[in-house]
Amino acid sequence: MRIGVLGTGQVGHAIASKLASLGHEVKMGSRTSDNANAAEWVTSAGAGTSQGTFADAASFGELVFNCTAGGASIGALHAAGVENLAGKVLVDVANTLDFSQGRPPSLLITTKESLGEQIQEAFPETRVVKTLNTMNNEVMVDPSKVPGEHDVFLSGNDEDAKQTVRGLLESFGWPPASIIDLGDISTARGPELYLPLWLRLWGVAGGPHFNIKLVR
Amino acid sequence: MRIGVLGTGQVGHAIASKLASLGHEVKMGSRTSDNANAAEWVTSAGAGTSQGTFADAASFGELVFNCTAGGASIGALHAAGVENLAGKVLVDVANTLDFSQGRPPSLLITTKESLGEQIQEAFPETRVVKTLNTMNNEVMVDPSKVPGEHDVFLSGNDEDAKQTVRGLLESFGWPPASIIDLGDISTARGPELYLPLWLRLWGVAGGPHFNIKLVR
Repeated sequence: MRIGVLGTGQVGHAIASKLASLGHEVKMGSRTSDNANAAEWVTSAGAGTSQGTFADAASFGELVFNCTAGGASIGALHAAGVENLAGKVLVDVANTLDFSQGRPPSLLITTKESLGEQIQEAFPETRVVKTLNTMNNEVMVDPSKVPGEHDVFLSGNDEDAKQTVRGLLESFGWPPASIIDLGDISTARGPELYLPLWLRLWGVAGGPHFNIKLVR
Repeated sequence: MRIGVLGTGQVGHAIASKLASLGHEVKMGSRTSDNANAAEWVTSAGAGTSQGTFADAASFGELVFNCTAGGASIGALHAAGVENLAGKVLVDVANTLDFSQGRPPSLLITTKESLGEQIQEAFPETRVVKTLNTMNNEVMVDPSKVPGEHDVFLSGNDEDAKQTVRGLLESFGWPPASIIDLGDISTARGPELYLPLWLRLWGVAGGPHFNIKLVR
């Protein structure tokens, strides 16, 4: 599949590299067409990879990942272009972390909203699926980094879009039983507001290779 | 131990009954000394149990549980009395659920605070420990309601207070390895902001007997 990955940070690198390793054609998008991080990634990732602006990547992709910093995501997606995202599945993995008051970061959202919902509202013709935001990027693309069973969540209004994302997650190594569909995009509040707990659990776990499992 | 339990709802009943079954003397506190829910509980729970006002219960207890609705907790604790809570361990299990806009409820706190911190700030001489708010009341007092390993969190500034609460949790049936100390009372933001995810996981689990486990 042709996939656009918006964002050139650690999450964008991890997602884009995994997708490329699975044989997808991947264009990494950023504010400028000559972003140094993206150029470095294209050099290392090799055949089938390219870089461009947010609009280039969104236009290129049949499916698009939002890996930008959550506080900048709406702006980045507007730069990507409403028309370039219309009808497409947008996989939103971002968190609205606010480091302005130090660490641990707080969230820029309130307890009555989520970035996933904000994006869906701003881009009504795009099929937004929130997922993967509840773990470190290394775990996102290689769940075996955490031993044993643990879970990833899906939120979105479009069932077909969630099926597509479920398939991608399985190709990343996620067992079908570990992919938990929470419901429509409003349920993205759950995984997004979980981040403050995740940040403290990082300290307990002593590193990034941890996750949670629903036990029932 | 003599324990005051503030609140006469399902959580108060579950906690008070468990404590009484373990041989503690328990006084259930509410706004009025003749609360019907509390009277019914005393009748069913039997020897060693009693009821009274918030102040009666706080004065009675060597340790006090806050099982009031989160939005009313600060008011209930002021009614209980700063002097009656001074120096004591206050186990805060409350969530600030707001049902005014329907279900699922949202939270009355922002993403930059927690009820646990608010209580600690309002009652600086009380040793607040946040715990047990991340699960259904039946699971709180009987973790075997959920099969397998799953976790409960502790947040608080006072190490001795957390040790005391750890002992109570073990007496409830929590294995020591499942009791996760997140750190000081500011870490209560994690478990409190987890509630929106917990509310959606209830739907996935199909009932209240579920919990999460930290996998690392």
